[in-house]
Amino acid sequence: MQKIYVLSEEDTKQLLEMDEVIEAIENVYREKSSGSGKVFPLVFHEFKRSVADMDIKSGTLDEMRVYGLKLVSWFGDNPSKGLPALSGIVMLFDKNTGLPLGTINAEHMTGMRTGAAGAIGAKYLARKNSEVMLMVGAGHQASYQIRAIQTVIKGIKKVLVYDPMKFESAERFVDRFDYKSDGIEYIPVKDLETAVRSSDIIVTATPSRKPMIMKEWVKKGTHFSCMGSDMSGKQEIDENILKVARLFADDIPQSISVGELEMGIKNGAITQEDIICEIGDVLIGKCDGRTSDDEITVFDSTGIGLQDIAAGYMAIMKAKKNNMGIEVEF
Amino acid sequence: MQKIYVLSEEDTKQLLEMDEVIEAIENVYREKSSGSGKVFPLVFHEFKRSVADMDIKSGTLDEMRVYGLKLVSWFGDNPSKGLPALSGIVMLFDKNTGLPLGTINAEHMTGMRTGAAGAIGAKYLARKNSEVMLMVGAGHQASYQIRAIQTVIKGIKKVLVYDPMKFESAERFVDRFDYKSDGIEYIPVKDLETAVRSSDIIVTATPSRKPMIMKEWVKKGTHFSCMGSDMSGKQEIDENILKVARLFADDIPQSISVGELEMGIKNGAITQEDIICEIGDVLIGKCDGRTSDDEITVFDSTGIGLQDIAAGYMAIMKAKKNNMGIEVEF
Repeated sequence: MQKIYVLSEEDTKQLLEMDEVIEAIENVYREKSSGSGKVFPLVFHEFKRSVADMDIKSGTLDEMRVYGLKLVSWFGDNPSKGLPALSGIVMLFDKNTGLPLGTINAEHMTGMRTGAAGAIGAKYLARKNSEVMLMVGAGHQASYQIRAIQTVIKGIKKVLVYDPMKFESAERFVDRFDYKSDGIEYIPVKDLETAVRSSDIIVTATPSRKPMIMKEWVKKGTHFSCMGSDMSGKQEIDENILKVARLFADDIPQSISVGELEMGIKNGAITQEDIICEIGDVLIGKCDGRTSDDEITVFDSTGIGLQDIAAGYMAIMKAKKNNMGIEVEF
Repeated sequence: MQKIYVLSEEDTKQLLEMDEVIEAIENVYREKSSGSGKVFPLVFHEFKRSVADMDIKSGTLDEMRVYGLKLVSWFGDNPSKGLPALSGIVMLFDKNTGLPLGTINAEHMTGMRTGAAGAIGAKYLARKNSEVMLMVGAGHQASYQIRAIQTVIKGIKKVLVYDPMKFESAERFVDRFDYKSDGIEYIPVKDLETAVRSSDIIVTATPSRKPMIMKEWVKKGTHFSCMGSDMSGKQEIDENILKVARLFADDIPQSISVGELEMGIKNGAITQEDIICEIGDVLIGKCDGRTSDDEITVFDSTGIGLQDIAAGYMAIMKAKKNNMGIEVEF
């Protein structure tokens, strides 16, 4: 009799460790660049314009021996009924046999894999002596980004938190942030320009549709991990920054159509040829990341389904090893 | 805390009743023809040519208030390892909230919904006074087809079973068929031509790649439900039958690309304009089915993902009502 794992959000919180997720996502980028990781065509359906939609992202990680999909639904009216607007579910299959491995709640896992992506951008592209991180956006994703960055950048001394809507959100975020690390100061900030001027690593995770960070404020050697833009029309940083920066993406076609690089290309500030390469190409040594301490680097992370497949697979492997989660006859 | 249902193959065997599945699949065809049922683009990936592949079929049934997907994997080397070559899993979501409803083993359910489809073809297109059914193919699917036909065609007196590979398979099938009905004779047959000449309803469910049934053998008023062709190149009946028959499909574009009608169109025996309509159009009264007792009718059923969504949804609703299956925190 066949069995599958069913992992709840609570299970994923217990099973997933940030350093391990970062390692898994690095492998995803490597597989994508070497060709063993393949992204299948996206399925998207809008039930009601700007109110309810769903998408199915799927793909295979042939080295990891797993394939699968994530279905994410967004129902904008849900919060008024006391339900979450966003929900997601991952399904995984054994690449050796095609048999189902399990079903995983995608909510916490998506936060983890997105945090990992931002940190991988910083790990491979930021200056080695980076000390100050600026988190732009104090929402749900900020916590994952900070956890991940302090996992990979050991020299971090200060984390500045800025909220584009109101200062109180940044204050409250810092108060409640559960993963404070010894030797790091966490500081809510009111003035974005001053914060940008003093930062080595800037992570943006907002739903912004117009640039918040101006080129004049950015010091030499700054690294940006731009996490917020995942839909056409979104933009977080001044396209003049893109003009002078070394540009990297998780998936070039997706960055051009929905990522941070989209508006820069549409407005003519940059062209597709200005994108150095995908981050996976840096990881496998096919392309250079940062080449000097003076350069500004930008990693445009739009998110790919393979990240969910890898994170979910790790959760199932750990559940099996530690006898956690629920295994159900199928 | 959110919960989802997980229904195993065993659960679906206990939960699904053929008459109810038939009703659900009729509603699928109605929704498809009225426009409230929508099929999303197919995702297909071949891991290794002719050895291993997977597809994701998805869609929404807006009237039924459910959407979802079925992922089916085919790993041809599995039987040599003692594993099933084909495996599938269905995931369903509440159309009102986007929240996941459950995960269902698709194996038995696919048999049921395919049986239901063949029977709906007969119910709406065969002569009302049909008495003899011929089942061509004595494989896994034959049992579901016969169960479904005897559910909807009350006048059936004889079921002939023919296996294109060997007679013994037909004999063994009849011996082991678990759903024998009082007043019906079940007869394995050796000679296909004689069987065709005496049959009112012919259901084909084989992997054939060349026509098995010739036009000269077919008597006036015969109905065909062609279930076997679901891949380019497959063909079960002589294309000269298509020339003189009233033709119906579950999904016209799919029939033309992979169904029984494909080869007839490719060989020039018929054109796309010869297809009367989709079966759903008959069910909603938009188009006439059979118009006289002399006509030959053909229903080309290629299978659509919406059938799995409807059958799975019924299984979950019944599990909830009867307190069956497993409900898991998610």
